[in-house]
This record gives sequence, structure tokens and C-alpha cells, in this order.
Amino acid sequence: MACADEVVTLLDTKVSMFGMRCRIALSEKGIQYEYREEFLRNKSSLLLEMNPVHKKIPVLIHNGTPVCESIIIVQYVDEVWPTENPLLPCDPHQRAQARFWADFIDKKAYDAGINVWITKGEEQEIAKKKFIELYKTLEGELGNKPYFGGDKFGFLDVVLIPFYSWFYAYETRGNFKIESECPKIVAWAKRCMERESVAKSLPDPKEVFEIYESVLRRKGLLV
Amino acid sequence: MACADEVVTLLDTKVSMFGMRCRIALSEKGIQYEYREEFLRNKSSLLLEMNPVHKKIPVLIHNGTPVCESIIIVQYVDEVWPTENPLLPCDPHQRAQARFWADFIDKKAYDAGINVWITKGEEQEIAKKKFIELYKTLEGELGNKPYFGGDKFGFLDVVLIPFYSWFYAYETRGNFKIESECPKIVAWAKRCMERESVAKSLPDPKEVFEIYESVLRRKGLLV
Repeated sequence: MACADEVVTLLDTKVSMFGMRCRIALSEKGIQYEYREEFLRNKSSLLLEMNPVHKKIPVLIHNGTPVCESIIIVQYVDEVWPTENPLLPCDPHQRAQARFWADFIDKKAYDAGINVWITKGEEQEIAKKKFIELYKTLEGELGNKPYFGGDKFGFLDVVLIPFYSWFYAYETRGNFKIESECPKIVAWAKRCMERESVAKSLPDPKEVFEIYESVLRRKGLLV
Repeated sequence: MACADEVVTLLDTKVSMFGMRCRIALSEKGIQYEYREEFLRNKSSLLLEMNPVHKKIPVLIHNGTPVCESIIIVQYVDEVWPTENPLLPCDPHQRAQARFWADFIDKKAYDAGINVWITKGEEQEIAKKKFIELYKTLEGELGNKPYFGGDKFGFLDVVLIPFYSWFYAYETRGNFKIESECPKIVAWAKRCMERESVAKSLPDPKEVFEIYESVLRRKGLLV
């Protein structure tokens, strides 16, 4: 729990899976914070000042000092408030494994989903195949454990679960059922959704679909 | 120092900046290890077994268990052998800052250098401008400190210094002097080179140039 004199602010946008990671981590730790919605076509001067290098959300501002990049923010939150619901495991090898898969997800999962969303026909079939391959690889890592780290909800669950709120959009545009292809991942996601920290941090999937459809349309990416 | 019954192996290639990071970190900790040179056109079955996801070097194998991805390896080494020459700072905000800049370097520095190497004419002028901008940004982060983390050689120095062994190639192909543009970075690099861990882990820059020229030529990337 944050001390009374600590000031925590999150610059974020509602449908960002990267922002959701931070919301879940803060919620797991029981941290009260101010949530500030950013509008990506009209970024606040605070965002530009706090993340001058990338000019991107999410940014966590803790007592005036910014921390940028979602995976770094989640690790920071875990290090500053270590007692409540530790997220990274203690064992160095398990920590390295969790970081490896977080990096894997960061490098592949966003593009894999967007490619299903914005393509059609044969190109979309290839995108769907790659998407399923990616989640099958992640199912391999999950195995028969309830969570990626074992019996307890942890770091890698925080990193991956926000993508679940985008599954409806991928399924709608891709005309497929992820659960038929990757039942273990969907069962894991439903298990995560039973946690209050996750349920309250993930937006309505239909809202993700509608908001991001208009973003993609504006960018000329929808065929 | 590793215990006598510990077995540490590094799968690596001599001119890889990512491999160099691991060599420096292990050297800073005084760890004895077996170095195994990999040939990227004929990867060993051990490499494919130890890094089945990316099939890339470097891989650190510690008592039979693999750790992949250079930045994750450096953090692992720092966590397993924390006493000797700590690399990451203790303060969570400074740790987040170091991770932020490591991520920034990983996303930008390799491509920035290669683009100078493989282009010509106007395209190369643009590539050089971007390269200098990148290192100017890093000079801004370095400020007047001897090392990125302050007075002591640390995590971010380990992450960036391997690129210094590629400067000769960038300068030769780009026909420019990095020191004239970014004197602070070159002064910092020379300071790092005074450390035994760095000096013995970085290859001869002319060898980097020759070896990687033939790689680029084979890939059809040299114009």
C-alpha cells in the first residue's frame, strides 16, 4: 500500500494493452493512483514532458518522477512495493524465464493480432495461422499450470492478459474462434479474469473493437 | 566467483555485440566459463536445443539450464552473483532508468549502425544523421558522469560499450569520424576500455569490419 504522502499518477489510454498491464500491477499492490486518460491525437504537455524520448503512454509518475515502458513499469511497481502480491518470482532462473517470455510477447503479440485485424482473404489466413502458432507456443510455456509462473498469478500473467480484451476484435474481424484453436489460453484468461485486479483493469472488448476500428480507419489501415 | 561445482557455458560469436555484453558481465563477476563459438550458418544442436524459440546466440547455460537474450542474461548474472561488482543500481527508479535506456539501445542502435554501413550517397547521409542523433541522445543521458550510472561502471555501460567495437566499421563505410560528432561518447568508450573486463571482451574492430563485411555481402546487403 502506498504511503499517504506518495503521489502516483498513470498516464494511459483505456484500450491500451500496455496501459492495462500497469493498472493490473498497481491494483495487485493496492496502490491508489490518479488515472489520466491521454488522447493520442492531442497528447498532454505532461506526457511530452514525462516521456520526451518516445512520447508514448503508459507513463507512471511516482512522486514527480516518471517511469516509462510497460514492462519496466510493472517491474518498478513490483520493486517499490514488494510485499503485497509479489509478481516476479524470487529465483533468478525463473525471473529470467519470465522476462524472456515477456520480451517474446512484446516482440510478437501486438503485430500478430493487428495483422489478423487489418487483412483479408489469403493474407488473413496466413495472419491467423501465425496468430494461432504464437498462442500455441505460449500454451506450451503455460503447460498444465494455472498461471504462467505456477500456482500464483504473477508477472507474465500481467504482461499477457490485456491481449484477451482484444480477442473479440481479432475474432470478429478474423471470423474465427480462438477458444477452438487455443483452449488452454482461453481457460487461463478466464481464470485471470476472476481476479478483481484484472476484471477492473480490462475494458469491455466491444469498446476496444469500436475504438480501435476508428483508429485503424483513420490511419488508412483497414481494407 | 562461481563455486567449483558450477558449470557455466556461453554460446556466442566473437563479433556479436550481444555476446560481448555477456562476456563483460561474466568477467566483471569473475566467473570462469566455457566459451563456445557458434557458426551462424551451421548452428550447433546445443544452440537449437537451448534456444528453441529464437535459435540465436548468446545463450548462457548455467548448470544445464539456459538463459537467452543478452539483456536478460546480464540481469541474470547480476542476480546470481550479486556481490562482485553489482551492475544494476539498488534504487528502483535508477534501475527503471537503466532498463529504459537499455531497451532504447536494443530497439535502435543495431539498425542505426547497420544503416550507415550498407547505404551510399544521400541515403547514407540520412543514416549518418540518424546515427549521430541517437548517440547525441545517449550523450544527453550520460551528461558529465564518467559512466551512465554515475561514478561506477554498471549495467548500461555493459549494454552499450560493445557497439564501440563496431565504430571503426561505421566510420570506414560512412567516411566520418564519430569522435568529431559525439566526443563525450567516445571519451566514455575509451574510459570503459580501460577496464580489463571490457578490453578482453571486445574484438579487434578491424576484425569486426572484415567478418561482418562478408556476412553483409553474403546476405546481398552491401551496395
